[in-house]
Amino acid sequence: MVGAGQLARMTHRAAVDLAVRLDVLAATDSDPAVLVGAPHRIGDPLDESAVVVFADGCDVITLDHELVSNEALQRIQRGGIPVVPDPMALRFAQDKLFARSELHARGYPVPPFARVDAVADVEAFATEHGWPVVLKVSTMGYDGRGVEIVAGTEEAAAVLNRGGIWVAEEMLDLECELAVLVARRPSGDSVTYPVVETVQRDGICRELVMPARVSESLQRDAVDLATEVVTAIGAAGIVAVEMFVTTGGELLINEFAMRPHNSGHATIEGAVTSQFHNHLRAVLDWPLGSTSLVAPAVAMVNVLGTGAESAAMRNLPAALEVEGASIHLYGKEERLGRKIGHVTVLGTDPDEALARARNAVEILGGFQ
Amino acid sequence: MVGAGQLARMTHRAAVDLAVRLDVLAATDSDPAVLVGAPHRIGDPLDESAVVVFADGCDVITLDHELVSNEALQRIQRGGIPVVPDPMALRFAQDKLFARSELHARGYPVPPFARVDAVADVEAFATEHGWPVVLKVSTMGYDGRGVEIVAGTEEAAAVLNRGGIWVAEEMLDLECELAVLVARRPSGDSVTYPVVETVQRDGICRELVMPARVSESLQRDAVDLATEVVTAIGAAGIVAVEMFVTTGGELLINEFAMRPHNSGHATIEGAVTSQFHNHLRAVLDWPLGSTSLVAPAVAMVNVLGTGAESAAMRNLPAALEVEGASIHLYGKEERLGRKIGHVTVLGTDPDEALARARNAVEILGGFQ
Repeated sequence: MVGAGQLARMTHRAAVDLAVRLDVLAATDSDPAVLVGAPHRIGDPLDESAVVVFADGCDVITLDHELVSNEALQRIQRGGIPVVPDPMALRFAQDKLFARSELHARGYPVPPFARVDAVADVEAFATEHGWPVVLKVSTMGYDGRGVEIVAGTEEAAAVLNRGGIWVAEEMLDLECELAVLVARRPSGDSVTYPVVETVQRDGICRELVMPARVSESLQRDAVDLATEVVTAIGAAGIVAVEMFVTTGGELLINEFAMRPHNSGHATIEGAVTSQFHNHLRAVLDWPLGSTSLVAPAVAMVNVLGTGAESAAMRNLPAALEVEGASIHLYGKEERLGRKIGHVTVLGTDPDEALARARNAVEILGGFQ
Repeated sequence: MVGAGQLARMTHRAAVDLAVRLDVLAATDSDPAVLVGAPHRIGDPLDESAVVVFADGCDVITLDHELVSNEALQRIQRGGIPVVPDPMALRFAQDKLFARSELHARGYPVPPFARVDAVADVEAFATEHGWPVVLKVSTMGYDGRGVEIVAGTEEAAAVLNRGGIWVAEEMLDLECELAVLVARRPSGDSVTYPVVETVQRDGICRELVMPARVSESLQRDAVDLATEVVTAIGAAGIVAVEMFVTTGGELLINEFAMRPHNSGHATIEGAVTSQFHNHLRAVLDWPLGSTSLVAPAVAMVNVLGTGAESAAMRNLPAALEVEGASIHLYGKEERLGRKIGHVTVLGTDPDEALARARNAVEILGGFQ
């Protein structure tokens, strides 16, 4: 697995069950997956040769995040080591402009967008779609970085002056955001988890409930759309398809994550097979596990760092008092706003489960 | 944790969630917990000084098995490092004669027993309780080792000649065997898991269902008895109280395990909080987690080695085809009859769940 963050850490936990050895390419020897004993090599995932050298001796290569040299993955694949997801499919998660354009061309629903190279392009887009305009950097953005909401020409100019390729997107009125996790084997079989309703703030997923509190027909449409598009682009492993639901009830594809994803953390306790187990199974082209939920409602709230050193760890015993709170901490420095853990609660009512998860997160001191 | 077998391996998995560092004292560097990255030191748990040296720098000491120098644990405790379970309580799990005698003296129900130092003692016991007689070595027995069923004088003599202290026990007519897992904090709080019905063969736990298929009143009696006796003897951490139910409906305490136990493996998927999480929480004197089940019926079947190298690992993908089978392999050499993994299945009917778990184990090639 290229990358050694919390996703690799939780995949290692699943690898323990299956007696699968999961080596990780880590940025530092205090990365979350390294701290829990995943065998590691230090290297930069964007350094083509570091990734190629890491892959040597592995049976299959997969990812903890998408900020990885696609050229390296192509070379590894040409060298005969399977890469899951396929580097060609991975471009849909690495390059927003490519993804939007391809999906639009193939007839999939995406938000109105345009490539903007100059302020005049943003102005032209705003003339049609109105201010404010959302500007998204085409590559290398994550967790809200590389997403800017600009109210006018001056702000747009400041963003474009940073360099990089930018995509303008209409500021949509959203009913809610959904995520559908698909686990797909390279040989084709796939399974889908119940639709997740995510709540984002400042571009970061803050909390979620599963199944989503939307109509059954919308849930079905979301699952069908996710399964169809994942199959069409040839992605494999866990693929999170993030979607917008507009106030008009329209379902639009926002973006893909091609690896275990924050929107699937609640599957550890909430589903028969966790996304991490199914990611490993998919990557190895093994039969996939049941995605059924084990409770009528599952809620998850992220723990974000406050900047106070080890605050969450100190508050952990107190937070464990919350009935049914399954707390996960990632062993990360608690920098302000950084995802350092999450809490999952199973229940019969989504609001009640969410309230308990929020309560545990408040006690951990991680909720702002 | 002294010991680095599959129990330490699965406790490490729980320690990952809680960002707790779990160091293990391992017999070899290919012990199950070492293979998944638990920081380790090599040493013999029966070597007093090895255990004392290992404890240096730890915040608290606990166990993966009971074949550990009690003297070492007492020294560690005197040195100011908490030991969970308390070494005095641990004697109830280390010394069968002591446990039977103490429990009997305190009025707890135990099978008829007597210390037997000579064949004449066995004959005297048989005169009262009939042949065959069960002979159990008082210390150092596990998984059926040190338990012999003798039909007469000659066989009894052969067993006693091996040396050691032996306890004679009546060969009871059993309705079934139960286990109750109690998680208890050193400061006193405790929680109890639903009663487990275990099926033993050749002294080894082969399969279980949870909750046990016995009357609710018997379940209540078993939980009450377990809670009372664990509190009375001052044990802490996870304590498994193994019980006999005679055909006459009598509930008798058979033995204790003072650490995560095979009878609790199904709590990983089957309960809100696994026994491994609750063991860590109890050992650290942190609030304990909910022991509620997430399904009406939970079944588990052990995978025993057949002696064929890596057979279970080779058959793993095929076994994963079984609907809802959560498969755990421990990374152990597949020696004949050795516990090398287990399979858990959640369901609505215990027999149906058990059938699926058995099916997966058969495919793994581990069921005889």
